[in-house]
Amino acid sequence: MLAAVRAATLAELGERGYADLSVESVARRAGVHKTTVYRRWRDRQALVVDAFEHLAATEVPAPDTGALAGDLEALARALVGLLTSPRGAVMTAMLADAARIPEIARARERVFADRVEHVRPVVERAVARGEAPPGTDPARVARALAAPVYLRLLVSGDPLDEGAAAEAVQTALAVVGRLREEYSDR
Amino acid sequence: MLAAVRAATLAELGERGYADLSVESVARRAGVHKTTVYRRWRDRQALVVDAFEHLAATEVPAPDTGALAGDLEALARALVGLLTSPRGAVMTAMLADAARIPEIARARERVFADRVEHVRPVVERAVARGEAPPGTDPARVARALAAPVYLRLLVSGDPLDEGAAAEAVQTALAVVGRLREEYSDR
Repeated sequence: MLAAVRAATLAELGERGYADLSVESVARRAGVHKTTVYRRWRDRQALVVDAFEHLAATEVPAPDTGALAGDLEALARALVGLLTSPRGAVMTAMLADAARIPEIARARERVFADRVEHVRPVVERAVARGEAPPGTDPARVARALAAPVYLRLLVSGDPLDEGAAAEAVQTALAVVGRLREEYSDR
Repeated sequence: MLAAVRAATLAELGERGYADLSVESVARRAGVHKTTVYRRWRDRQALVVDAFEHLAATEVPAPDTGALAGDLEALARALVGLLTSPRGAVMTAMLADAARIPEIARARERVFADRVEHVRPVVERAVARGEAPPGTDPARVARALAAPVYLRLLVSGDPLDEGAAAEAVQTALAVVGRLREEYSDR
């Protein structure tokens, strides 16, 4: 039931957008009674926030290739792959809705915070291997990696391709390299 | 007249959004006849695209502090300042509309391309001073500088403050530093 309702929520969002989505329309599409939906989700915002968080979260474990560059490459390719998939189209629409709907904005922020947790073990292993200085902030690395990809998607219109993933990896490695220099200068 | 119509377009956009904006409502707010508007702009899309491009373009000349770090800092502070201003709120709404309206997406891309041209002299002077390797792509530097700021605005929800500008500068300098290393390894 959970999966059917989440899938119905995303399908309604993709087809109609948030403004026209209702608990009733989601329940109908999922083939369940609306009281069943209301038992778990208070309102349509709760539905959308939950679906959004699951959309971004259903993913492979953090990569462990044995090197920071390889791990970052796997993360960057996964992000580009997600954002260029049908799920990515729904995510892009939700990112746009976040400009006007505070609950979506908060869901988006929770989703991004969750992505940082995904990057954390990668950074911790890099620190353990001496590839990144002690105390390297996983959030800083996650932002350096994600920012070039989202800039292309949401601002510059540059293609979301292999080059985008490569630019993300190079940027994150450059930031880590700079942190290392600053650390060794201390 | 031009300035009044552009200001009216932005005010209508901010208050009603693109869906409810019309040439008539813009003309009324600007205090001009709608045929006057139609003489210069074919339709409401043309109005919005033109207003958007002017919104982002009305700015100071490219900074020339004598050092790449200083120039990048001035650019990053100007971007953070713009995006946290009332004009920035309108820009954010337009960036959101770009997800669903192709003409706005194209305007957004032209605006970003224009920003790259703003960064070009900064990069050229850095190359002349030996701070960046020959052939450094101004677009790459512009993306490295802008991406962390837009990520905070449109995705992560992290604050758009001094720290955001500093992160943008450090990221762009890290990318240029990495390009220098690659160049000197050749």
